[in-house]
Amino acid sequence: MGIQKPSIPKGTRDFSPLEMMRRQYIFDTIRNVFRLYGYAPLETPSMENLSTLLGKYGDEGDKLLFKILNSGDYAAGLSDDEVRSASRICEKGLRYDLTVPFARYVVQHQSELVFPFKRYQIQPVWRADRPQKGRYREFYQCDVDVIGSRSLLHEVELIEIVARVFRALRIGVVLKMNNRKILYGIAETIGHADKMIDITVAIDKLDKIGIDAVKAELEERGLDRAAIDRLQPILELEGTNEQKLNILRDVLSGSETGLKGVEEMQTIFAAAERLEIPLDVELDLSLARGLNYYTGAIFEVKAKDFTIGSISGGGRYDDLTGIFGMPGMSGVGISFGADRIYDVLTGLNLFPEEIGCSTQVLFVNLGEAEQWESLQLLRKVRDAGIAAEIYPDAAKMKKQMEYANRRGIPFVVIVGSQELEARRATVKDMRSGEQRQIGFERLAEALEADFA
Amino acid sequence: MGIQKPSIPKGTRDFSPLEMMRRQYIFDTIRNVFRLYGYAPLETPSMENLSTLLGKYGDEGDKLLFKILNSGDYAAGLSDDEVRSASRICEKGLRYDLTVPFARYVVQHQSELVFPFKRYQIQPVWRADRPQKGRYREFYQCDVDVIGSRSLLHEVELIEIVARVFRALRIGVVLKMNNRKILYGIAETIGHADKMIDITVAIDKLDKIGIDAVKAELEERGLDRAAIDRLQPILELEGTNEQKLNILRDVLSGSETGLKGVEEMQTIFAAAERLEIPLDVELDLSLARGLNYYTGAIFEVKAKDFTIGSISGGGRYDDLTGIFGMPGMSGVGISFGADRIYDVLTGLNLFPEEIGCSTQVLFVNLGEAEQWESLQLLRKVRDAGIAAEIYPDAAKMKKQMEYANRRGIPFVVIVGSQELEARRATVKDMRSGEQRQIGFERLAEALEADFA
Repeated sequence: MGIQKPSIPKGTRDFSPLEMMRRQYIFDTIRNVFRLYGYAPLETPSMENLSTLLGKYGDEGDKLLFKILNSGDYAAGLSDDEVRSASRICEKGLRYDLTVPFARYVVQHQSELVFPFKRYQIQPVWRADRPQKGRYREFYQCDVDVIGSRSLLHEVELIEIVARVFRALRIGVVLKMNNRKILYGIAETIGHADKMIDITVAIDKLDKIGIDAVKAELEERGLDRAAIDRLQPILELEGTNEQKLNILRDVLSGSETGLKGVEEMQTIFAAAERLEIPLDVELDLSLARGLNYYTGAIFEVKAKDFTIGSISGGGRYDDLTGIFGMPGMSGVGISFGADRIYDVLTGLNLFPEEIGCSTQVLFVNLGEAEQWESLQLLRKVRDAGIAAEIYPDAAKMKKQMEYANRRGIPFVVIVGSQELEARRATVKDMRSGEQRQIGFERLAEALEADFA
Repeated sequence: MGIQKPSIPKGTRDFSPLEMMRRQYIFDTIRNVFRLYGYAPLETPSMENLSTLLGKYGDEGDKLLFKILNSGDYAAGLSDDEVRSASRICEKGLRYDLTVPFARYVVQHQSELVFPFKRYQIQPVWRADRPQKGRYREFYQCDVDVIGSRSLLHEVELIEIVARVFRALRIGVVLKMNNRKILYGIAETIGHADKMIDITVAIDKLDKIGIDAVKAELEERGLDRAAIDRLQPILELEGTNEQKLNILRDVLSGSETGLKGVEEMQTIFAAAERLEIPLDVELDLSLARGLNYYTGAIFEVKAKDFTIGSISGGGRYDDLTGIFGMPGMSGVGISFGADRIYDVLTGLNLFPEEIGCSTQVLFVNLGEAEQWESLQLLRKVRDAGIAAEIYPDAAKMKKQMEYANRRGIPFVVIVGSQELEARRATVKDMRSGEQRQIGFERLAEALEADFA
């Protein structure tokens, strides 16, 4: 085993203690809100059968699946072509998202489940994308979904969840919403019901490329000028959500589906207002969401004070489980983007200061007798729930203090010969530099007060 | 996309909400203890370069690595033999344990780290083992290690951590300890220093196969009868740890390494006693631990009232990072086996009762007006930190109550027309069946009291 310079695969990351503590803060905040709304945790295996994954994400997605080589004599009895095609040397792949495994789970366990089934799932997913800034080959998704109910109360609940999560994280956000039925209604109204997908794909880019480029793309995708001209004013609708919906009710009067979408959004917005949910919710007709299994309301969350893509998104789907042989299960869910939320919190300097010190109190080590007294005190400090440690050797004071500084430990407890005699510890606040003397028997509660 | 009966790869598991809540209880308990001792969280990628993993776990281990097929045109320009050999179509593999990635991380990031570096890591690992009862191809490890210090205070700290974790989980355990230096000293003393590995591998099986089978195996492995006869009484030593160590000091008087091991254990046991750590710690000379990178104290935890393999284990290693070009970094760590701990808690019925209900309060839905009042109350109940939900439709009462029962929801709040009039909700305790009337404005605090 020769010496090798270690590295990790491109597109993957190590998370240092500081990054981890910040990520745990994000995950814990999100998880606590999910729990408050009665969602139960679920985990599925990292590996799924390729038959479960293939064909669920389009041809592009299939190419981005990480395939796992069959273990053992993987190529036994296969022709060179079969081996090269990889079709028979790999039967498993890494999870590409949490939605398809969730659908697979619901179908597989339908007899044990109580519907509506509310679950959250926080796990990594893997995509063989070309790595680039902000895009990784392994990243976490935080999904919350309810399946087995068409009630719009669930859409309202998701609005509340978004409001609560970002209030807890102190990030100002706007929730943009649209409805796939409205988009279909628009396509139908301009005489291109068949081009629903092309239209959504094109207008999805409105923010990025602007109206003219979108019109050009629509023409490429086979819409005639007249249709495009009728589409433009709809995309540029101004006013309150209520006003936009009122106009749409007229524009879409010829489309039953479109009117259904308008009605759904009116119900959802009215409930959000009546419940005084503290969140800016905005109907955005240019919002389309890439994934095509959405069939009703769709969501996207943007940070107000930081420029980055959407930090959460989701929507209503009517037939997620059909592909696995269980049709007609309607559900709705939203996914929180932990990496982008991390970037926003970093960019706006919103991580609470106390995050990032894994040890709150360090006992310096000044020799045999002092060490034993310190170990007794250390036990009491930990019993008080304070993260504490003792320097493992009686090293030079300077070295131990440097350790405390570099670790960002806020308090150092010194038990030297004088302290032993007086039965009082010296507590140094590393930020202010100020020192206090505290009797041994009162040390734990005194430190507890510092962290209360 | 035709319909397919969904399944998951053999050896992998879905974790249902109940299993997840119980697992979270185990992980949270362990994590909180790790934090209390100043260990910082770390995560490494699921995929490592095969060059990082190969050759670290023996030939057997290499066979058990899950290899990931290179993405894209993985076989471009390769000969059929190269493709078949898999040596060039796979450059990445899934993590086999948390120790090698930890060593890789420490070497790769040595310039940023402060030593001694204390980290914990709770992540899944993957092994292409033949699946069988209690053995899975994906399972979590919970590792805690400190690296960059030879101080025996760390061994003592790990004893405290074991005591605290299993006290918190209410599992009675015994911590068995031994020392690789003592095992080497024994091998040296019986004239077979060269056969240290054979001896450890053989006596490691003492518990399972008994002394005679061990002696037979030692003979197969090339030890002469005389040596084996001198070994037997050592393995059958009786008495307190102190007594065993005193005898060993004589037996191993000819082995410097052996005496060093005896001294280390005396220091560790003396400290544990002086600190009155509430844990049975037992010197077990038949304890060897399979992994050969251990060089000092080794640990293994057994449950007292439940028959299962060890539920935690670890030890001191002096050169974990050498293979990556960073020699002489001594460290010590222990790993907690979440799956076996789960089985013990299940077998002894030790999971706290409240675990397993993700929703504490269900508001039944009795129609438009009742629903709006309920939604207002629901918000206040959630603000009080209580996990609560409302049934999404005004379905038949029977159906809603059945939902509460099957979900194991302990309290149901009923707001019907009478309640609306009286401004008092009916709260039903689903376990006792007893009902109370509580004024709307007092509902949240009343329920809060029920969960305090």
